[in-house]
Amino acid sequence: MRVRTDLALEMKEDIETDEPIKGVHVSTKNNGDTDILETRIVVENEEGAMNLGKPVGTYITLESEHLREHDDSFHKPMTEVLSKNLKRFIGNKRRIMVAGLGNREVTPDALGPFVIDNLYVTRHLLREGIISHSIEVSAIAPGVMAQTGMESLTILQALVDKIKPELLIVIDALAARQSDRLNKTIQLADTGISPGSGVGNHRNAINSENIGIPVLAIGVPTVISVPTIVNDAMDAMVDAFGKNGPKNVLKKFNEDERYQLACEMVTPYLENMFVTPKDIDEAVKRISYTISEAINEAALA
Amino acid sequence: MRVRTDLALEMKEDIETDEPIKGVHVSTKNNGDTDILETRIVVENEEGAMNLGKPVGTYITLESEHLREHDDSFHKPMTEVLSKNLKRFIGNKRRIMVAGLGNREVTPDALGPFVIDNLYVTRHLLREGIISHSIEVSAIAPGVMAQTGMESLTILQALVDKIKPELLIVIDALAARQSDRLNKTIQLADTGISPGSGVGNHRNAINSENIGIPVLAIGVPTVISVPTIVNDAMDAMVDAFGKNGPKNVLKKFNEDERYQLACEMVTPYLENMFVTPKDIDEAVKRISYTISEAINEAALA
Amino acid sequence: MRVRTDLALEMKEDIETDEPIKGVHVSTKNNGDTDILETRIVVENEEGAMNLGKPVGTYITLESEHLREHDDSFHKPMTEVLSKNLKRFIGNKRRIMVAGLGNREVTPDALGPFVIDNLYVTRHLLREGIISHSIEVSAIAPGVMAQTGMESLTILQALVDKIKPELLIVIDALAARQSDRLNKTIQLADTGISPGSGVGNHRNAINSENIGIPVLAIGVPTVISVPTIVNDAMDAMVDAFGKNGPKNVLKKFNEDERYQLACEMVTPYLENMFVTPKDIDEAVKRISYTISEAINEAALA
Amino acid sequence: MRVRTDLALEMKEDIETDEPIKGVHVSTKNNGDTDILETRIVVENEEGAMNLGKPVGTYITLESEHLREHDDSFHKPMTEVLSKNLKRFIGNKRRIMVAGLGNREVTPDALGPFVIDNLYVTRHLLREGIISHSIEVSAIAPGVMAQTGMESLTILQALVDKIKPELLIVIDALAARQSDRLNKTIQLADTGISPGSGVGNHRNAINSENIGIPVLAIGVPTVISVPTIVNDAMDAMVDAFGKNGPKNVLKKFNEDERYQLACEMVTPYLENMFVTPKDIDEAVKRISYTISEAINEAALA
Repeated sequence: MRVRTDLALEMKEDIETDEPIKGVHVSTKNNGDTDILETRIVVENEEGAMNLGKPVGTYITLESEHLREHDDSFHKPMTEVLSKNLKRFIGNKRRIMVAGLGNREVTPDALGPFVIDNLYVTRHLLREGIISHSIEVSAIAPGVMAQTGMESLTILQALVDKIKPELLIVIDALAARQSDRLNKTIQLADTGISPGSGVGNHRNAINSENIGIPVLAIGVPTVISVPTIVNDAMDAMVDAFGKNGPKNVLKKFNEDERYQLACEMVTPYLENMFVTPKDIDEAVKRISYTISEAINEAALA
Repeated sequence: MRVRTDLALEMKEDIETDEPIKGVHVSTKNNGDTDILETRIVVENEEGAMNLGKPVGTYITLESEHLREHDDSFHKPMTEVLSKNLKRFIGNKRRIMVAGLGNREVTPDALGPFVIDNLYVTRHLLREGIISHSIEVSAIAPGVMAQTGMESLTILQALVDKIKPELLIVIDALAARQSDRLNKTIQLADTGISPGSGVGNHRNAINSENIGIPVLAIGVPTVISVPTIVNDAMDAMVDAFGKNGPKNVLKKFNEDERYQLACEMVTPYLENMFVTPKDIDEAVKRISYTISEAINEAALA
Repeated sequence: MRVRTDLALEMKEDIETDEPIKGVHVSTKNNGDTDILETRIVVENEEGAMNLGKPVGTYITLESEHLREHDDSFHKPMTEVLSKNLKRFIGNKRRIMVAGLGNREVTPDALGPFVIDNLYVTRHLLREGIISHSIEVSAIAPGVMAQTGMESLTILQALVDKIKPELLIVIDALAARQSDRLNKTIQLADTGISPGSGVGNHRNAINSENIGIPVLAIGVPTVISVPTIVNDAMDAMVDAFGKNGPKNVLKKFNEDERYQLACEMVTPYLENMFVTPKDIDEAVKRISYTISEAINEAALA
Repeated sequence: MRVRTDLALEMKEDIETDEPIKGVHVSTKNNGDTDILETRIVVENEEGAMNLGKPVGTYITLESEHLREHDDSFHKPMTEVLSKNLKRFIGNKRRIMVAGLGNREVTPDALGPFVIDNLYVTRHLLREGIISHSIEVSAIAPGVMAQTGMESLTILQALVDKIKPELLIVIDALAARQSDRLNKTIQLADTGISPGSGVGNHRNAINSENIGIPVLAIGVPTVISVPTIVNDAMDAMVDAFGKNGPKNVLKKFNEDERYQLACEMVTPYLENMFVTPKDIDEAVKRISYTISEAINEAALA
């Protein structure tokens, strides 16, 4: 079955239950007087991983109504909350590499490359003694396979082996399930990037196992997959027609089967399509700037 | 009801009938030994306009399996067929203005601005006596309302009044109904641009009535609207479940009503979204180049 | 003679004299605890205009050592000082149009278009009643003559006539004389833009006389002209060789004649070239952001 | 002493002599009925390298009056001549990597990245069995040190070690001495890229010794260095003043010393600047397209 969301938060929500999910620990907190809701999902073991459908690790989701809006007063609090979280992941590591995944020519997939564009890269400056107040930051926007002929994983493995950073931060555009999460949610995951449902699918996981050093993923949902949209429409139809309608037929299927059905209704060509908002250019520019500023701040020593 | 396609060809196909549509004349031809199919739809009068749902005028659709592919051998024939058609529209006019509508920051909407980028603009060169072998070509990529605060129509009215070209050619990205038409169909219409369903909706028609001179629209479908996708899924579901399924319920609705239903199932936020292929960057670059070369060729005197 | 600088400040400096220049009033001030030096040059009458070589009007130059640096702590004070100055020019006008002149494809000339990219455009939002806390801001990046076939002046005349703003703000990249002024100086001039020596020369002045409403120009020097570089080298050579060298020959020429000589030594092809720093991309991105934020702030009502 | 040109052809021209240069073999040919002049300079041994100031190897220069012009009829012959030369370098190698060096945000330095944008990358398509009629082409636009914190050499070493191509083709913008060579000359060198005088200097040579496989460099001069401009002005001044002028003084210096003098007259800040034509955007777009098409053609099997 194709993955329908890259957000651990939404996978948790999909599991309709009041009982805690075994092997998964969820906690939320508000950040002071900001409106930023922070949800921490810890997948504690393989049982939790199987139950949630996400690898063992920690997933932090930062949500805000305002991330999508033209509102400078917001940029600052999100930068701070994100930076604080990044600092915890960085710990006392002194050399980080930041990889902006995705295709800069396709707007909702350009998030990663745009973060690199605004990043304050310091590795060469520190080595030449020009600055001293930062940890070592190197950066790469490797491009996508259609541009390079190489898997992103392969390029990053080569560079990490050569440059030997202590932490790899990968930035990527994600797919969400709910349209109202697009462009206003940031997910941090110490599990790296799994093959997903974003614009540019990475077929091989970019994680600490494959890379050899800790990998922190920063993701923002910028698209919805077409099967998700169709699945939602089917749900809406079930509700709309009530018990005289197709409900009785669709009732036979559980949610996973219904999603499978939606996928089957989608022609192969549609699978290679994505759904994104018309103002995606503004959103991606704004959020990439927030992320790069947060990394810049977290890298100050 | 929201428009579901900007292609006259698809609106004709939607009308399931073997009888000719009154007031609409349709003819097709193949272009020599190329694989380019040319369909000419002439909406002859108001009756035809009402029947087809498109203003009175001529719509030429050029279709090719290859327009979407990396194949240089194709670029040349399409350029030639398009250029030949443009020459007929230009006739003996000596001053044309080309407007590339859309937002260059949103990939599927960047078609118009990208055409302008590759255009051979000659107005100033002719006036300075630097060249002489061309008709006067001026060009503008006005941007979208979110960038300018002004309707595209308003900007073009102002420039046409000032520069006084004899023909305005507007380039725009369109919405199609069928995903396999995306990025391999070019529509020429002497009716200009109607408010449509593309990425960036133009609320006011850009046509000869509003502009004061003949307006030729060159459009390429690069997106599908979300309601269209949902509608298609409903159709597929009807077929899938057969007579034991929702068919009996949905049967009560005709196609227009069903599309209306699809629209209602789509939340307001989804209406501001579009569906586009993952390789849209390559497609838009390629087609915009073909269109600009065709205009360049047609403008040679 | 070709103009060697677009900065009123440098034209004043070129006049080597301790006496005040007749018809020209110069005053400077520091802005509080920032390091921003503000020089106000008022050309009071035609005598002043002839003496300085700049039209009658007010020229405000904001200079800072830090504008070129990667230093977020600086961005804020410059935005504030600039915004304060803009507010004075805007006064109680309620409708402004911002024009970003230049070619977005040539890095040092992209300043104007980049400002438009970051601008908060409000005209359509106010008219639709979506917002209310701003004056009306419309915006255009008209492109350069090689792209449009039209003079920037012509396009702006057409749009101002149609949209009827009360103030036109034009943003443009300028040429400076001294390399250490590049990318760290902002000039405000209520005289608009004169034909100058920047990357993309505007042949016709964009000023209130030609546009019909007040025109405020915001300019940043991003290039040096080739004759300026050559002239400087000649000066350096004169100094280097002392009285046994070419000094005796060059002594016969005054500064204007020497600049004329430098121009003559420059082949015609070199005249169409410009000199710019290797890190121009970073500089233009940074400064355009500062300017757009300052306009955004000044437009809040 | 700073290098004043990256073109072997110009270094040869600088040596004012009718005698053949020892260890250097020069031959020219015209390409059929095209106007493309091909100069082949073979530096045969260390003596030749010392005499010419370029490493041992073969330098092929393709020159054409038309490369700079808007003239489609030209693009085809240059693509063919370049492709023919590339095929000879590729020989029977089956796996090539193409690296587009430079900064895509600085117009004259964007040549390399723009070539990658238009390249037909095949490595993944061949491995997945989607196509079969090509040799394996992978590609990377690594960015510049200010963007990545890493030397281009380091990134390329890492990728070549990992991907194991048989040939590395590097594309880069170069500095020329003569302004009329800009944007109309292509240099092929089997010596790779030496630290040069282009926009973005590579401090470490990218050659077969450092990379471990053959390295072919494709370079196009897009800038002139500031010291070169100043040096030319000094030469012009010497000529202008005749024997009553500074000639007697400057006569004491040979050409190298005079260039050294020019460098000293140039302030440190000016050294970090470059000189480029105002229409550099058009030129770089055009030439990068010609180079990518030539590589595409040469890679067909």
